[in-house]
Amino acid sequence: MLIDRLNWRYATKVYDSSREVSDAKLTAILEAVRLAPTSSGLQPFEVIVVKDPALRAKIRAAGFDQAPITDASHLLVFAAWDNYTAERIDAVVAEIERQRGGDNTTLRAYYDRLKGMYLPRSAEENYQHAARQAYIAFGLGLTAAAFEEVDATPMEGFDPAAVDEVLGLREKGLRAVTLLPLGYRAEGGDWLSGQKKVRRPLNELVHAVG
Amino acid sequence: MLIDRLNWRYATKVYDSSREVSDAKLTAILEAVRLAPTSSGLQPFEVIVVKDPALRAKIRAAGFDQAPITDASHLLVFAAWDNYTAERIDAVVAEIERQRGGDNTTLRAYYDRLKGMYLPRSAEENYQHAARQAYIAFGLGLTAAAFEEVDATPMEGFDPAAVDEVLGLREKGLRAVTLLPLGYRAEGGDWLSGQKKVRRPLNELVHAVG
Repeated sequence: MLIDRLNWRYATKVYDSSREVSDAKLTAILEAVRLAPTSSGLQPFEVIVVKDPALRAKIRAAGFDQAPITDASHLLVFAAWDNYTAERIDAVVAEIERQRGGDNTTLRAYYDRLKGMYLPRSAEENYQHAARQAYIAFGLGLTAAAFEEVDATPMEGFDPAAVDEVLGLREKGLRAVTLLPLGYRAEGGDWLSGQKKVRRPLNELVHAVG
Repeated sequence: MLIDRLNWRYATKVYDSSREVSDAKLTAILEAVRLAPTSSGLQPFEVIVVKDPALRAKIRAAGFDQAPITDASHLLVFAAWDNYTAERIDAVVAEIERQRGGDNTTLRAYYDRLKGMYLPRSAEENYQHAARQAYIAFGLGLTAAAFEEVDATPMEGFDPAAVDEVLGLREKGLRAVTLLPLGYRAEGGDWLSGQKKVRRPLNELVHAVG
């Protein structure tokens, strides 16, 4: 069932721009993104949903002119935190306390240790760590899209600084890491849709030891 | 359905070490990992399945003594390529040609451009890029585990160099990025299993523009 959906999906190159993804399906995809596990539960990223054609044209210009950016129904931009800060980590702790209640001595001690590890590191090192967490959520988002029978195009081939500029991300402490156009494939119009999905055989990708 | 499974899963802290994950379920999880999309289809990682208790004890010592590493049924180690090389990229092209056949002029031109981009970069930059791809597959693997009703513990809190040493990964051009113990939660024995799953509300994580 999961495997069927993963075999159905492919990196859609040509979208039927007349078809819209429903709010219900979009919400299901975003909910999977929200439920993605991340290191120490920090969820160090945001997702920007871009509908505006003018903004999307600018992002396409920063994305090697790839058509899915403008032609899909919706464009998701995954943007990682540019750094870990005490404020950001404290906000996560406050949210856990709000939702779980109870005695939080152990919880606070854990996140104090985490601050002790993360805050002395460079912004670049922390950003790289945050970006990896965004990739987990990106993986869950594209899987959820396949489940909803919504086509998607996982993309990292774009100029991140230019996309940051278009969306004003740096001012928000964010940096674009991936794009995920969502919509419906142009039936018969996409050269890639008829191609066999190629993956390395399991016995080359996976090795057992011990 | 997907959302139900994602709500069911949690980062299991205590495993029932008497319960084994079946080969069928393990294969389904690994197949999802194999089907994960990666940049230009390179799949720049391998997964090591570790059963041997002695090896797992050594990995646990390199992993802040976290019990899931030894007590779960299986331990998956996601290891990214340490660099992109002409040989590795050529092997991907050869696999596509083998599986798809036909005229491959466009395909070869695409991967020649990719080599022109990747090969001049530092090993570290290429490794970081490969590691992000491994995180996508890691996301799909943990989702597939939830689908199979197999518990899992996504982990990146370990000493990667020490794990590389234990498994001899550097000699194979690999670097450990994440661990994924797989098995069955100790019913009633895991302090975390009764806790409410905490995530940021959707309206904080996701923002619409345009």
